[in-house]
Amino acid sequence: MNTLIVHCHPEARSFNAALRDTAAQAMRDLGHDVDVSDLYAEGFDPVEAPRHYRHRANAEVFSALVEQRHASTHGTLPDDIRREIARLEKADLVVLQFPLWWHAPPAMLKGWFDRVFVNGGLYSGSRRYDRGYFRGRRAICSVTTGAPAATFGPGGRGGDIDLLLWPLHYSLHYMGYDVLEPVLAHGVQDARGGYRYQEDAALAASLSAHRAQLARRLANWRTDTPLRFPGWDDWDEHGMLKPERTDVLAPFGRRS
Amino acid sequence: MNTLIVHCHPEARSFNAALRDTAAQAMRDLGHDVDVSDLYAEGFDPVEAPRHYRHRANAEVFSALVEQRHASTHGTLPDDIRREIARLEKADLVVLQFPLWWHAPPAMLKGWFDRVFVNGGLYSGSRRYDRGYFRGRRAICSVTTGAPAATFGPGGRGGDIDLLLWPLHYSLHYMGYDVLEPVLAHGVQDARGGYRYQEDAALAASLSAHRAQLARRLANWRTDTPLRFPGWDDWDEHGMLKPERTDVLAPFGRRS
Repeated sequence: MNTLIVHCHPEARSFNAALRDTAAQAMRDLGHDVDVSDLYAEGFDPVEAPRHYRHRANAEVFSALVEQRHASTHGTLPDDIRREIARLEKADLVVLQFPLWWHAPPAMLKGWFDRVFVNGGLYSGSRRYDRGYFRGRRAICSVTTGAPAATFGPGGRGGDIDLLLWPLHYSLHYMGYDVLEPVLAHGVQDARGGYRYQEDAALAASLSAHRAQLARRLANWRTDTPLRFPGWDDWDEHGMLKPERTDVLAPFGRRS
Repeated sequence: MNTLIVHCHPEARSFNAALRDTAAQAMRDLGHDVDVSDLYAEGFDPVEAPRHYRHRANAEVFSALVEQRHASTHGTLPDDIRREIARLEKADLVVLQFPLWWHAPPAMLKGWFDRVFVNGGLYSGSRRYDRGYFRGRRAICSVTTGAPAATFGPGGRGGDIDLLLWPLHYSLHYMGYDVLEPVLAHGVQDARGGYRYQEDAALAASLSAHRAQLARRLANWRTDTPLRFPGWDDWDEHGMLKPERTDVLAPFGRRS
């Protein structure tokens, strides 16, 4: 089995980097081959733009979807995108490791979605959600936040974490992944010295607990019940939720 | 009065660009001075990274929050960030014009949040939400999507649009803005020829209707009731929602 860790943090000595290493070791302990897309270290370009397409379907007017589909069909996707797709195609489990910046993944990781999950090659109108390209595979987000855990409940100051992660989880669902409940490390602030965890006893203890939690969750990656999202059987021919399926609505992917 | 339009689309002849021009004209018609941050055209770099900080607070280990605060204090923020902050400081209204890519703003716009809303300079632990730097100002998202409007309701195939925009709206709330209901143009697909609106009668009619809707909404920018989010009076000392304030919870910023 194979695991891909998509790691997004600019600092090699960060709390996130430590968790990335924990995830890698945990999966190796389970016998997985582990690959890491270290987006900052590899200098990934997160901006979808005309410059990535040398053989344009339309040289005058740029549409990302048109060019992605064209490049998929003609084998002219950019090298970095082909590399990322090859990594994904091997992976039974994808782990996204990132800090929550402005209530969402950093631009670097958002752009990985914008550019890697290419129209045509990895999805089409009929090949999405529970019929998606990566159906049968699993994905999990391992996320650090800067505020205390208590503030991330419904109506809390940090923002309801289930709402904050919902768009990202929905994108993974769109690609066919079974999305596991996220692993959350709250209260991690580089500004307060999060990266000094090796020198500070309280931070070291916090990191140690978060490492153990992440390893424990990953040990159950095949058996944990995925989050629940609506799928093709739940929608009518207009893509609207069937009236009898409103039980999938709340609470936003949480396990009931 | 002043309006800033933050425009995020790689193609100058896109539906989004047409809506940007509509917004600019609508606000000029109201007597506003209008400035446009055209992120792609200006080559904005959305990746928060060490390279932007020449005078580091900590030259060894990079923390975005530490360096933002340090650069704010010492007047050493990058030139592009100072330019964006100056634009924001003039603006009574901020219009974000963008396509929904992977259930969220494109990486280019996400990175504008990551880099421009600097720690220390524009927010601190006590200067956030309804006590935020831009309190009294207003913000509105004008968003195009690729699927039909019907699919964006609760449980719909496109994803509940209120959930999809919630993290971005919450970030604007964090900065103190009163966030207006978004202006949505559904079913806009460059892949289907969205940019050929000038040559195609149906697309031209659609664009025309969306332009009129946007202009109408912007005409009421000062009087429309903003979305509702929890604020300092709603939270206890732990940042948790007070039990008697659960009325702010649903339905995720929608006007009741």
